[in-house]
Order: sequence, then structure tokens, then C-alpha cells
Amino acid sequence: MSKGTASDHILLSHGSGGKLTHQLVEELFVPYFRNPSLELLEDSTPFSAGEQRLVMTTDSYVVDPLFFPGGDIGSLAVSGTVNDLLAGGARPAYLSAGFILEEGLPLADLKRILASMRDAAREAGVQIIAGDTKVVPRGAADKIFITTAGVGYCRAHLTVGARSVTPGDVILLNGYLGDHGIAVMAEREGLRLPQEVVSDCAPLTGLLLPLFDAELPLHALRDPTRGGLSATLNEIAQTAGVTIEIDESRLPVRTGVLAACEILGFDPLYLANEGKMLIFLPESRAEQALELLRAHPLGQEARQIGRVMERGRPQVRLLTEIGGRRILDMPLAEQLPRIC
Amino acid sequence: MSKGTASDHILLSHGSGGKLTHQLVEELFVPYFRNPSLELLEDSTPFSAGEQRLVMTTDSYVVDPLFFPGGDIGSLAVSGTVNDLLAGGARPAYLSAGFILEEGLPLADLKRILASMRDAAREAGVQIIAGDTKVVPRGAADKIFITTAGVGYCRAHLTVGARSVTPGDVILLNGYLGDHGIAVMAEREGLRLPQEVVSDCAPLTGLLLPLFDAELPLHALRDPTRGGLSATLNEIAQTAGVTIEIDESRLPVRTGVLAACEILGFDPLYLANEGKMLIFLPESRAEQALELLRAHPLGQEARQIGRVMERGRPQVRLLTEIGGRRILDMPLAEQLPRIC
Repeated sequence: MSKGTASDHILLSHGSGGKLTHQLVEELFVPYFRNPSLELLEDSTPFSAGEQRLVMTTDSYVVDPLFFPGGDIGSLAVSGTVNDLLAGGARPAYLSAGFILEEGLPLADLKRILASMRDAAREAGVQIIAGDTKVVPRGAADKIFITTAGVGYCRAHLTVGARSVTPGDVILLNGYLGDHGIAVMAEREGLRLPQEVVSDCAPLTGLLLPLFDAELPLHALRDPTRGGLSATLNEIAQTAGVTIEIDESRLPVRTGVLAACEILGFDPLYLANEGKMLIFLPESRAEQALELLRAHPLGQEARQIGRVMERGRPQVRLLTEIGGRRILDMPLAEQLPRIC
Repeated sequence: MSKGTASDHILLSHGSGGKLTHQLVEELFVPYFRNPSLELLEDSTPFSAGEQRLVMTTDSYVVDPLFFPGGDIGSLAVSGTVNDLLAGGARPAYLSAGFILEEGLPLADLKRILASMRDAAREAGVQIIAGDTKVVPRGAADKIFITTAGVGYCRAHLTVGARSVTPGDVILLNGYLGDHGIAVMAEREGLRLPQEVVSDCAPLTGLLLPLFDAELPLHALRDPTRGGLSATLNEIAQTAGVTIEIDESRLPVRTGVLAACEILGFDPLYLANEGKMLIFLPESRAEQALELLRAHPLGQEARQIGRVMERGRPQVRLLTEIGGRRILDMPLAEQLPRIC
């Protein structure tokens, strides 16, 4: 694989959520669109309307295949954007949806996708209030791409963001890692896995609003999608300038995902999730947060997986099950293209 | 061409901005996403944040070729969404941008597009505050697609919308028709036109804010993009339940566009525009509005092109230059795919 810096063309790895994605964003997009909001590089961006603070976010969805166990491009396009609003400390309220359709797309597929979007929007408590449809000739796109943007209402007491992460914070996670990545990959490649793996794709509104309502001092929320746990933790370590330590023995991974990873040569810590949230907050409030999380069906496996250590060298360390330590690096390359 | 109703697949004409687009939106998208805002079928949708009313809109851009005289997919992606916010009676404030890139896209092209977006955003007075990039393998998309969403602040005294259009309103237009459609088409097909035609692609913030500031009783604003003047006026006639009469002799079309239309067999009234606005307001305030429009470089050719006649049969009539009348129908099929 080319290293990207030397390349003068877009590479698949520019979309991996890893180092090359960050390089593209930081060296190209941010300089061109320079403004203080964008430079924070959070998943969503605050703005004001009178007294009210809002956040805005967007994501494009190009997942292949369109339908996979546990979801489809429609549920993904709603859940992913809703979860980014939640990660901004906001109550998700409104979505827009731009559809790029390839000529020849079966209307039955489109209807199924729209029904998924409707159901996910209902579950998430959001309204889809604006839309657009473009059709391109056969071969100019692959079936359907959806770009959603979202707007949410900031919770007054919350100023979450990677910059607020501080030594002493613990890191909570609401459930199993890697389900989405393996579910999509297996469906795409037509693999028969020893155990079926179902994507965790879901909007996390119901899981997280109780934490907002309880006015917990949440320092950061981040959904580990492209690039997985590893990319997300590395982003936060970089931004906050801290070392993060993760306890491997506490990381929940289903046996089906582990088995698939062994067959395929993947690492579950780099696999995309679409219904997971990493929650950073002071240790003193961790138990209260875990109780609230576990009271929701999507948080029954919630647990503390690590903590924020000293300031200084930004890195993510993994305490391995046999007692060793290894650096969990930002992924460089594309592990699974078109995963979301 | 199949008629669409009989088809169970997406046709190119579903993206034309004409009858099939409306059918798709009204029979499929609106029923699935049912909510009062979406049913208004305006180009942008209002929502509230405390005392402040905002509007949200989105559009996907798939124009082919990426670069054309007068603009590129980047300036288009900013201008089109900004103009939809203005058409909602709002001051454009924030944009998000989702990029779908094809593996192999030259970085030089991406940089040129980002520079155009930056310049158009500056001209429009908006900030691009959220973004996302996905990369798909070669052949899964055509170079680059951009979806922008926008948020703007409603002007308190304005409640513009096709439903407010009423008999006695006059219709103003700020300049020449069809430039964008012909510029893109000529570039795509490598045509040598007798006169070069340059797209009118531009954000209209500077043109329209003075009309908002003057607190003119604007009844509707609409930018005649896909499907051109004809599709836009038919939409408004349908929604308002009125007959609209347009005076052909007052329609400004450049000789270069007329010549190209003759060669190519197009009608300028169905061609896309990307820097034009149709403005409906009571006749008594038309002169004041025209003065304000003409004071801006993008409004020097502003003029009244028609008026709203009786309620009842929703239709658009053209008074021809030789004194006849003909019905200007909603376009059924695709005149020019991938025009925006």
C-alpha cells in the first residue's frame, strides 16, 4: 500500500477512520474551512440560537452490502448521526437526509430502507424534516448512498468534548465490541461464521438521556465507529494530551466475533461499532452512571474498561490479560472499507 | 421511456425535478417520514430553538463534469444549499458537508473543490462547521459527490412559503434563465457553442438580505434549479392553488443560451439555474423590491416576469410574444441528468 503522504490521489485508506483519514481532515479540510468550531474536530459542532445552544453534525453512509444482520443503510444513517449528536451532549431533534440513487435501484429496496429510517427515527426521538434525492446513471454510484445531517439541543449543564478529558476520569462502555464490523463483513463476503453475528446498529438516545438528566459531570462521549475502539481512544488521547489505559480483561467481545476475527485476521479493537458509546467521567460518579446505563436494554453489559492516566505523552496502553502492556496504535490502513 | 408508475426500479427521470421526482417524494418519502414540516414540501423546513426560529435544508450534488465555466461541484454545493435557506426566509448561517470520494480522485481536484467551497461560503456569509469523508473503491462512485445541509436564522417578520402566494402577487426574477444548464451540458458534451455560456452559480445572500431587512411582505421565494422556471412555477401553482401567468417577452434569456437551445433542442424555461430567485410579493411593493435587487451585481437584470391570477385551476400560462397563450407544464422526464 502506498503511504498516502507520497500519493497525490485519494486512497481507500483515506476513508478508514485511521491515520490517513486524520491527515486528510487536518491537512486539507480544516485549513480550507478554517473556523474555531471545525478545529475542535469533534463529531458534532455547537452553535447558538438566542439563549439556546444547538449542535450540528453530518455523516455520509456508503455501507456495502445495503442489508446486513441487525440493520441496513437506513437504520445506520439515522443511528450514526443521532449518536454523534448525543456524543456532543445534545438531545437529538431533527435530521435531514440526502439520497444519491443509482438508476435501476429496485423500489422495493428503497422502501425497505425508508421503513428502517422511519423506525430508527422513531426510536431515536427525531424527525426527518428535510430531504433531497438525486439519481445518477447506472454505474455512476453503487445502488444508494445516504447523507444525514442532524441538529440537537445542547443540555445546558454539559460541555462534553475530548478537551475536557482529564487524569482520574474512568472510561465506560455500554456493551460488546466489533459486532457491526463482523456482521457487515460476513454478509458482504458471504461467509458462514460458526455463530451468526448481528450488527449493534442502534440509536442511543434512550440509553444516554438518563445520564444527561442526572446531570452527571460527563467529560467526553464518543461512539467508536470507523477504526473502532482503538481509533477513537487515540483521537481522545491526542486531543486531551493524556495517556489512556485500557484493561483487556474487561473488554466485552462476543465469542462469535472473536471466532470470526481469528478466521479473518481482524482485531476486534479496530472493528466498527454502531451502537456503542465511550463515556468519560470522574471515577466518583462511575457507579451512578453504570446503574443508569444497565437499566436500559442497550446498556446491560455496561462496564468500566479503563481510565485516564497522566498528562504528557498522548497514547493508549492496553493492559493485556497476561499482565503485559502494549501500545494500542491508531490504525493506519483500511481494515474494512465501506463499513458504514 | 417507461412511465415510472409502471416501473419498480428507480429511473433517471426520478431525479429530474419534474413529475416523477414529485411522485417519488409524495408517494414514497413523505408517507414514510410523515411529519407536518416535511409535508409542506418546501425547499427548507422551519424548527424552533427557544424564541428563535431556524430553518434546515439539505441537497446532494452529483454534477457531471465536476468543473464547468462559472463554477464547480464545490461552489454549487454551497450556493444551492445557501439559496434554499434564503428561499425559506432565513439568513444562512451554518453548513455541514458530507463527501463521498472515489478511490483515485486526484488530490489536486479535491483541493480545487475545497477552495471553491471556501470562497462560496465566504461570499455567502456561512461557516462550514461539520464534515465527513467516505472513500469508496474505484467504480463505486463517480469521482466525488457532496451533500451539504444548512441551518439559517428565520427573519421574524417573514413567513414565506408557496401557501402564502395569493392572487395579486407579482413575480420577480433577478436575471437570465438557463445559463447553468447550458454551461454544464456544453462542458460535459465538449460542445463548441457560438458564444461561451457561463453558469450563474452563486450564493444569493447579498442580493436577498436587503429585501429581508426592508421588511417587504414577501409571500414566496424559490430558486428555479432542477426542472427550471417551469417546474418551480408549477410547484407553486399546485401548492397555492392558483393560476400563474408569465409574460414571455419579459423573460431574460441570453442569446448564447437561446442559440445553444436551438442546436440541442432544449427549452430554456426547463433549464436549471443556480443563481436565480423567483420572488412573489404584492404588486404595491414590487418597485421597491426591484430597486433593492438592481442595486446588487447579481440583480442588475431584475424584472417582473408575471403575476398570480385567479384561484382555482392550478396552472402556469405563458403569454407568448405573438400574443397567444400556452400552458407551461411540469416537465415529466429528464432533460439533463446530473445537472446539479
